[in-house]
Amino acid sequence: MKSICGVEGVRAAGIKEGKFGLTLIEAAGTAAGVFTSNLVRAPPISLMEDRIRKGRLEAVIANSGCANAFTGERGYQDAVHMGDICGEVLGIDPNAIGVASTGVIGRYLDLPLIERQCKKIAPVLERTEQAETDAARAIMTTDLTEKHALVTREDFTVGGITKGSGMIAPNMGTMLAFLYTDAEITARNLKSALKKATRRTFNQVVVDGDMSTNDIALCTSTGLAGKIKLGEFGEALEECCRSLAIQIAMDGEGATKLIEVFVKGAPSEEDAARVARTVTSSPLVKTAVYGEDPNWGRVIAAAGRAGVHFDPGKTDLLISDGAAVIALVTAGRIVVDLAAAKKAMHGKKVMFQLDLHAGNGMATAWGCDLTEKYVEINGRYTT
Amino acid sequence: MKSICGVEGVRAAGIKEGKFGLTLIEAAGTAAGVFTSNLVRAPPISLMEDRIRKGRLEAVIANSGCANAFTGERGYQDAVHMGDICGEVLGIDPNAIGVASTGVIGRYLDLPLIERQCKKIAPVLERTEQAETDAARAIMTTDLTEKHALVTREDFTVGGITKGSGMIAPNMGTMLAFLYTDAEITARNLKSALKKATRRTFNQVVVDGDMSTNDIALCTSTGLAGKIKLGEFGEALEECCRSLAIQIAMDGEGATKLIEVFVKGAPSEEDAARVARTVTSSPLVKTAVYGEDPNWGRVIAAAGRAGVHFDPGKTDLLISDGAAVIALVTAGRIVVDLAAAKKAMHGKKVMFQLDLHAGNGMATAWGCDLTEKYVEINGRYTT
Repeated sequence: MKSICGVEGVRAAGIKEGKFGLTLIEAAGTAAGVFTSNLVRAPPISLMEDRIRKGRLEAVIANSGCANAFTGERGYQDAVHMGDICGEVLGIDPNAIGVASTGVIGRYLDLPLIERQCKKIAPVLERTEQAETDAARAIMTTDLTEKHALVTREDFTVGGITKGSGMIAPNMGTMLAFLYTDAEITARNLKSALKKATRRTFNQVVVDGDMSTNDIALCTSTGLAGKIKLGEFGEALEECCRSLAIQIAMDGEGATKLIEVFVKGAPSEEDAARVARTVTSSPLVKTAVYGEDPNWGRVIAAAGRAGVHFDPGKTDLLISDGAAVIALVTAGRIVVDLAAAKKAMHGKKVMFQLDLHAGNGMATAWGCDLTEKYVEINGRYTT
Repeated sequence: MKSICGVEGVRAAGIKEGKFGLTLIEAAGTAAGVFTSNLVRAPPISLMEDRIRKGRLEAVIANSGCANAFTGERGYQDAVHMGDICGEVLGIDPNAIGVASTGVIGRYLDLPLIERQCKKIAPVLERTEQAETDAARAIMTTDLTEKHALVTREDFTVGGITKGSGMIAPNMGTMLAFLYTDAEITARNLKSALKKATRRTFNQVVVDGDMSTNDIALCTSTGLAGKIKLGEFGEALEECCRSLAIQIAMDGEGATKLIEVFVKGAPSEEDAARVARTVTSSPLVKTAVYGEDPNWGRVIAAAGRAGVHFDPGKTDLLISDGAAVIALVTAGRIVVDLAAAKKAMHGKKVMFQLDLHAGNGMATAWGCDLTEKYVEINGRYTT
C-alpha cells in the first residue's frame, strides 16, 4: 500500500470521468479537520465543519470538477444532498459523512451524476493499492499525478492522499487532504496534532499565493492499532503531511522545479515561517529558479519585505540541489561562485537556506518555479 | 512639455548607453521623499533620506543598470561619490544632491562610467521636451516606454517622470519617481501631500508583488509660481502621481492589459485599498484577465482572503472596458452574461468594480495581466 489503504479499517474507491471525479472513503472513527480561512467559504466547508464538531466520521464523499462554491443556500442543500446520497448507498447515518468538493467556482453540483458515480463505485470499496490510487486520482483537478503518503511506526500507521495544484497558498490552496490512522487517539488530541502538522506543512506550501474557498485537511482515526504515544503520533502525522505537501509543491501548475526554502535564526518559528513563505511565493524568485539564475538578490529582497526584523548585514544564504551546497552570501557579503551556483540549479529541486542570525526560530516552505505553462493553464481554465 | 520641464525652474538631461543610463535634474527648492519599506535598503536610499531631512535639494543624479543594492559600506561610499561627481560637474554643494539607483542588485557602481556620462550630459541640461524625454528614458530598466505626467492648474504646475516595471508592489516596486512643482509650499506640507498621494497611487500599483530595495518618490518645489491653495495642490499632485502609476501598471513586464480594481463599500479606505491590491495581485485573476476569462469566482475568492470583513452574500461585482459595464455578481448572486463579459475583456483595459456593502471606504488599485512574456523576462534577467 502507498497511502490510506495502508491503515487498518480504511476502504476506498474512486472514479474519474472526464473532468468529473468522485471519491468514497469508508472508515469509522474519531475525526478532526482544518479548514480554509478564506472569508468566502464553499457550502460543503460549512457542512463539514458542522459535522466534524461531534468528533466522529464514518465516511467521506468528495467530488472533483465542481467546487460547489459561491452557490449560496442552494449550494449548502446540494452538499447535504450529496452526503445523503452517500449515506443511502453505504447504509450509514448521513450526519456522520463528510462532504468535500473541488473544481470550478460558481457552478451548481451535478447531483444526478454524483448519484450515478456513487452507486457505481460503492460496491467496489476495498482496501487495495488500486482502490487508494483510484481514490487519489478521482479528486484531482489540474494535478498531473495522484499524491500518496504512508508513514509506518512500530505500533501504528498514518496514511493520506491529497490533491492540489493551483491556488495553493499559505493556509492551504484548493487542497483536499484525507488522512487516516489506526492509532487510538481522542478527537481533541487528533485536532491539536492535525493543526500543528498543517501549520508546518500544508500551510507552508505556496504555488500561486491564492487561497481557495474549499480547502480542507481531515484526519480520521480508526483506533484499531490501540493506544500510542502522543508525541510519536504527532511526528508521524507531520511526516505524512510533509510528504504530501512536497508532492503538492512539485505538482504546482506548470512547475518544472521544486523550491524548498529553509529559514533559521529568525526571532520566532512564526517569523521564520513567514520569511520562508514570502521568499517561496516571490514571482521574481520563482522565475529566477525557472531560469536557473542564482539571483540571491531577489531572495534577500523578498526576505526583507516579509515584515520580520533582521540585520541583512549578518545574513547567510546557501543554495543546494540536495547534494552540493554553495554559499551565495556569508555575513551579508556576496561570496557567490556563479558557475557553481548555476550548476546547483540544474536539477528538479532547488533549496535555499537562509540564516538570519536573529534568534532561534526555524521553518521551511515549499513551492515551485513560475513558468510560461502556469500562465497558459490559468489563462484558459473556465473556457 | 509633457512632464518635469513643464515646471518652471527645472532643467533635465539624460543618456542611455546599452543597459546603463544616467539622468540629471537640476531644480533648487524645498523637497520631500517617500522611501521603500523593504528592510533591505540600498545604500543610496539611506543617503537620500539623510539628505532630504533638511527639506531642500538642488539637483538629482540617478543611474540605471546597477541598483547599488546589497553593497554594504562600499555601496554607501559609492553613492556619496556619485553625488560628489554631480556636485563638482554642476558646481553645487554635494549635500544638496539626491542620489538614486535602479537595476541589478548586488553589483557595485561603475563610477568611472557614471563620471563620464555625467560630464557628457551636464552641459546639455535644459528645459525642453527632448530633455525631459531623455531624462525619463535614461532611468528605464525593463520598462518599454518612458513615463511622463504634467498637471496644470491656473496658478501652478506639477510634473513628473517615473520608471518601474517589474518588482512593482504595494509600497512601491523598483520605482523611481521624480516629481516637480512650481507651487510655493513648505517642506512639511510637501511631505504630507506626497505621502498621501503615494499611498493612494504608487502604493496601489501591483505588478508582481515584490517590493524593491530601491524605491523612491521625490518631490521638489521650485516655488516660482508663488503661493497656492494646499488642498488644490494635494489634488494636483495626486492626479500627477495617479497618471504615472497607471503608466507603470500598463508597462508591467510582459503585460498586454491594464487591470483597474475599484473597491467601494469597505469598512475603511485602508480596507478598500487592501482588497483592491489583493485582487489586483492575484496570479489567478491576472491570468484570467490575460485569457479574457470573466472568472468572477477568482475575483471574489481573492477579495475573501484580503483579511477584510464583508458579507459575500451582499457583494456586487461589475466588469467594464471603460465603455460597457457588465454585472457579474449582484447581491451575492451570479448574474453574468458570459458572452457580454468576455467582450468587455477584449480591450487594453479591464476594470473590476467591487461593492462590499460593508461601509464607506473606497480605493483603487492598478496592475496588469500575467503572461508567458513576464516569465520569459524574469527567468533570464541576470544572465
